Amino acid sequence: MLTGYRPTGRLTLGHWFGNLLNMREMQEEYEAYYFVADWHALTSDWQDTSAVRRFTEEMVLDWLAAGIDPEKATIYRQSDVPEVAELTLYLSMVTPMSWLERVPSYKEQREQISDKDLGNVGFFLYPLMQAADITIVKADLVPVGEDQAPHLELTREIVRRFNGTYGELLVEPQAVIPKEGARVPGTDGRKMSKSYGNAIYLSESAEETTAKVRGMVTDPARKLKTDPGNPDICPLHQIHRLVGDPAVVAEFDRCCRVAECGCVAHKVKMAEDLNAYLAEFRERRAELAAQRNLAWDVLQAGAARIRPAIDELMGAVREAMHVDAPVLR
Amino acid sequence: MLTGYRPTGRLTLGHWFGNLLNMREMQEEYEAYYFVADWHALTSDWQDTSAVRRFTEEMVLDWLAAGIDPEKATIYRQSDVPEVAELTLYLSMVTPMSWLERVPSYKEQREQISDKDLGNVGFFLYPLMQAADITIVKADLVPVGEDQAPHLELTREIVRRFNGTYGELLVEPQAVIPKEGARVPGTDGRKMSKSYGNAIYLSESAEETTAKVRGMVTDPARKLKTDPGNPDICPLHQIHRLVGDPAVVAEFDRCCRVAECGCVAHKVKMAEDLNAYLAEFRERRAELAAQRNLAWDVLQAGAARIRPAIDELMGAVREAMHVDAPVLR
Repeated sequence: MLTGYRPTGRLTLGHWFGNLLNMREMQEEYEAYYFVADWHALTSDWQDTSAVRRFTEEMVLDWLAAGIDPEKATIYRQSDVPEVAELTLYLSMVTPMSWLERVPSYKEQREQISDKDLGNVGFFLYPLMQAADITIVKADLVPVGEDQAPHLELTREIVRRFNGTYGELLVEPQAVIPKEGARVPGTDGRKMSKSYGNAIYLSESAEETTAKVRGMVTDPARKLKTDPGNPDICPLHQIHRLVGDPAVVAEFDRCCRVAECGCVAHKVKMAEDLNAYLAEFRERRAELAAQRNLAWDVLQAGAARIRPAIDELMGAVREAMHVDAPVLR
Repeated sequence: MLTGYRPTGRLTLGHWFGNLLNMREMQEEYEAYYFVADWHALTSDWQDTSAVRRFTEEMVLDWLAAGIDPEKATIYRQSDVPEVAELTLYLSMVTPMSWLERVPSYKEQREQISDKDLGNVGFFLYPLMQAADITIVKADLVPVGEDQAPHLELTREIVRRFNGTYGELLVEPQAVIPKEGARVPGTDGRKMSKSYGNAIYLSESAEETTAKVRGMVTDPARKLKTDPGNPDICPLHQIHRLVGDPAVVAEFDRCCRVAECGCVAHKVKMAEDLNAYLAEFRERRAELAAQRNLAWDVLQAGAARIRPAIDELMGAVREAMHVDAPVLR
């Protein structure tokens, strides 16, 4: 089972409930490969790559602090497997232009994202690179959200065409629909997202979190403490449900609806419960961050662990495509 | 100075006068890099790659027999520098789709070549791979024919954009117009070409050459020995001018024009002179071919010779793009 993430910086509470809990579970059930897709970060952010290295390190530390165990899951960095580029090129030989042109996310993102230049060849090649990421470790299962499903279908088509041309060398991956994570609202009620500036970071301090919770949007219809509120549309309540003691959360739900308690008190308690929920993660994160080079050691070990399998696969691929040299003498 | 050839099999008399004499001269004047572009062969011939390895070996043997000296020129194989794939991917980040779409040879060949499937992504990426071939060895001069000039211009544009984004790392190559080689007609009078089936191979036997010369087309207006001929449109004469003793050739020219001599006698003499011209090459070629693994040893040595410079360049590129790991401890 393989899944990769672009290094985009510190992880948020949204990632925690959306991905990390799943990743922690999957490492128990599957032979799990979790990779940092640093080359993918280049495809859209090639104009400024200055943060890629730092973001790589931070993401790995967040993974480790969240309980991703490098003994259970193989954690590695895409660029530590440079053969991904070579395999991308080989896959490009059997891939018709039209297959990449029709990837739904391609046209869509080129049209909709205006603050980045996505007219580059690298962005066009991104689903092909993904196919190389998947096949180079012979991943048989790939968790995909709905928007990623066409990418996996493309990988499957490419694998079939490649195997049909050069022999059965690549594994055709199956999609796994990941367990749906909880949707986490940001401090402004929209989906939590770094780019909205409404994110609570797993690794920020309790003080920062408390300040953010204090500034959170609540039910906009509840202007006064004496107005009854609707917890179902209040982001404060939604996060509290995920992290608080059920009895306490139920009591806030009740008293809000009948205007017996106010948002300020609820914010104080919710921040306290959220900080308690994250305390263990944060302590562990700080310990791990203090270990010089830890993230890089983990990545290096992961890359070393998959090296023999990569060499074997690429050797077979080169031989089948007749671009290998004979073994001399 | 860099130049690369796709491994398409044994070289012909057309290659001798068109390329090999130039290559032999350039290795004296320049620091020459001659590479076998085996990955490029995949871009158009991906459906059947079975001959790539054999053709690679044959081309190198032909080069060596023609006097390309691996002590003077660095001879290597593209796939022995897998970083070409990695650099291709990096260059793809800064290259707009439109730059590749407008490469003149791209549209043209896709429209005109019907016996191969050129609708694949690999064929689209071919000029980008060329840019990586050129820049990975910091080639400053690239001999280009007229049809290749737009490719080199593309490389120059990509280098400027890459250097503008990540710093002055890549060398912007200059075009060298190679000395024009003699045009060699095939046995049927058309341009000599493997695909026309009209080629005389450098490494074929004297008997094969003699038989081919015997079957050559001559001035079609000269039906009888008593008709005067026009040597200027006769392929027999054209090849003879390249390989024969000038006085002998002049005499055949004269007696043909006044119908004093016939084509059959001329064919006998021309075949003799051509075989004499190629005798040294053929002897040397046979000696080299008898040395087991020679071509692969030469390619391996060439790849080893450029390895330090490749590592240095790619290290600098990865660092500039922030996809390198820190040096641990």
